[in-house]
Amino acid sequence: MTEQQTKTPYDLPDVNGLAIGILGGTGDQGGGLARRFALAGHQVIIGSRKAERAQQAAEALGEGLPVRGAENAVAASEADVVIVAVPWDGHKATLESLRAELAGKIVVDCVNPLGFDKKGAYPLPVEEGSAAQQAEAVLTGSRVVAAFHHVSAKLLLDPEVDEMELDVLVLGDDREATDLVQALAGRIPGMRGVYGGRLRNAHQVEAFTANLISINRRYKAHAGLRITDV
Amino acid sequence: MTEQQTKTPYDLPDVNGLAIGILGGTGDQGGGLARRFALAGHQVIIGSRKAERAQQAAEALGEGLPVRGAENAVAASEADVVIVAVPWDGHKATLESLRAELAGKIVVDCVNPLGFDKKGAYPLPVEEGSAAQQAEAVLTGSRVVAAFHHVSAKLLLDPEVDEMELDVLVLGDDREATDLVQALAGRIPGMRGVYGGRLRNAHQVEAFTANLISINRRYKAHAGLRITDV
Repeated sequence: MTEQQTKTPYDLPDVNGLAIGILGGTGDQGGGLARRFALAGHQVIIGSRKAERAQQAAEALGEGLPVRGAENAVAASEADVVIVAVPWDGHKATLESLRAELAGKIVVDCVNPLGFDKKGAYPLPVEEGSAAQQAEAVLTGSRVVAAFHHVSAKLLLDPEVDEMELDVLVLGDDREATDLVQALAGRIPGMRGVYGGRLRNAHQVEAFTANLISINRRYKAHAGLRITDV
Repeated sequence: MTEQQTKTPYDLPDVNGLAIGILGGTGDQGGGLARRFALAGHQVIIGSRKAERAQQAAEALGEGLPVRGAENAVAASEADVVIVAVPWDGHKATLESLRAELAGKIVVDCVNPLGFDKKGAYPLPVEEGSAAQQAEAVLTGSRVVAAFHHVSAKLLLDPEVDEMELDVLVLGDDREATDLVQALAGRIPGMRGVYGGRLRNAHQVEAFTANLISINRRYKAHAGLRITDV
């Protein structure tokens, strides 16, 4: 077995200094990721439809963090890597409106298309197969990666939580892009980015969030995944 | 928070002494589970379409283990709990032929409907939503549970492997049945049974096996899942 074959999830590029844009950064998931990446020393630009709301969300994360707010188009064009954390409802339309700004960039989709009823959460059908594949279909000029689906917004935002013990599954067909996003996940203490397959296998990773919600209810937990033997 | 609310995955029934039938026990997955449950002291009946093949498979697991082989119908009717480990191709037909024998029993489906091409594994569409839901639709008189999807057949059969470090996600709508199957998972050293949601959320757990196959390829591993914070 050669060196090249025995790839580990620790042999990854240096992502220090990359600026991160977060579309939908005014929501809990986006805001939580913004906070953690800022704590890790990244410049973060929270995007929203209205610059004012984005600025308020950035300020709400606390003083002294390198986070600012801007319109989605500004966040998309000024960041090196852009995370899509918008509600599923507005997913397609938001991405369609940002095609030009996102061209050539690594776009990280973390959206989970879920429905809720009295029995709990369940995955919604997606014409393209998954939110990530929908992003790929819309953003033909971008490098789409899927990641950060199972990260608890509550823990991300909790000042008492220093480390988040979980593996972030990173999916995509562009090896350089998935490596970079794995490295980004590793910037948050406790997290590890693990390659999780091609984009065509993103649906079940998104949908599995429904199972984590069931697990959280049953065990009063904030459950995450670890991959064993890796 | 009362005692009843803070349920843990360790407060489970005693399953000592339960006889386990394994439909499709001549395959690697079924044979591996047979071996581990026999090592844990359970009487195991491997089922196959032909009794002779089942007997050969039982003998191949080694001397001194409480495993025998029989026709599927015998394995189904004589066991207390029946695991379905048949190939996806024959899943529906096999279950339809065993409706009577499986009536009233806990039936544990561990089948992953997957396709393979040069890009690796991917989930196959299932009319009922998942293999487990197909089992539920066919076996209207049984108590269907989904579990053991992510267990590496190779590790189950490896005599060098004493402990299997992973959580077995157990899905179903019958609490007593899922508790019992969680306890069964816990009989294999290193494994823990964790409730993973209702049967309607089984598809993504089955499909996630495709991602584990990708992970195994990338990292030369036998990857499994652990659920954190539970």
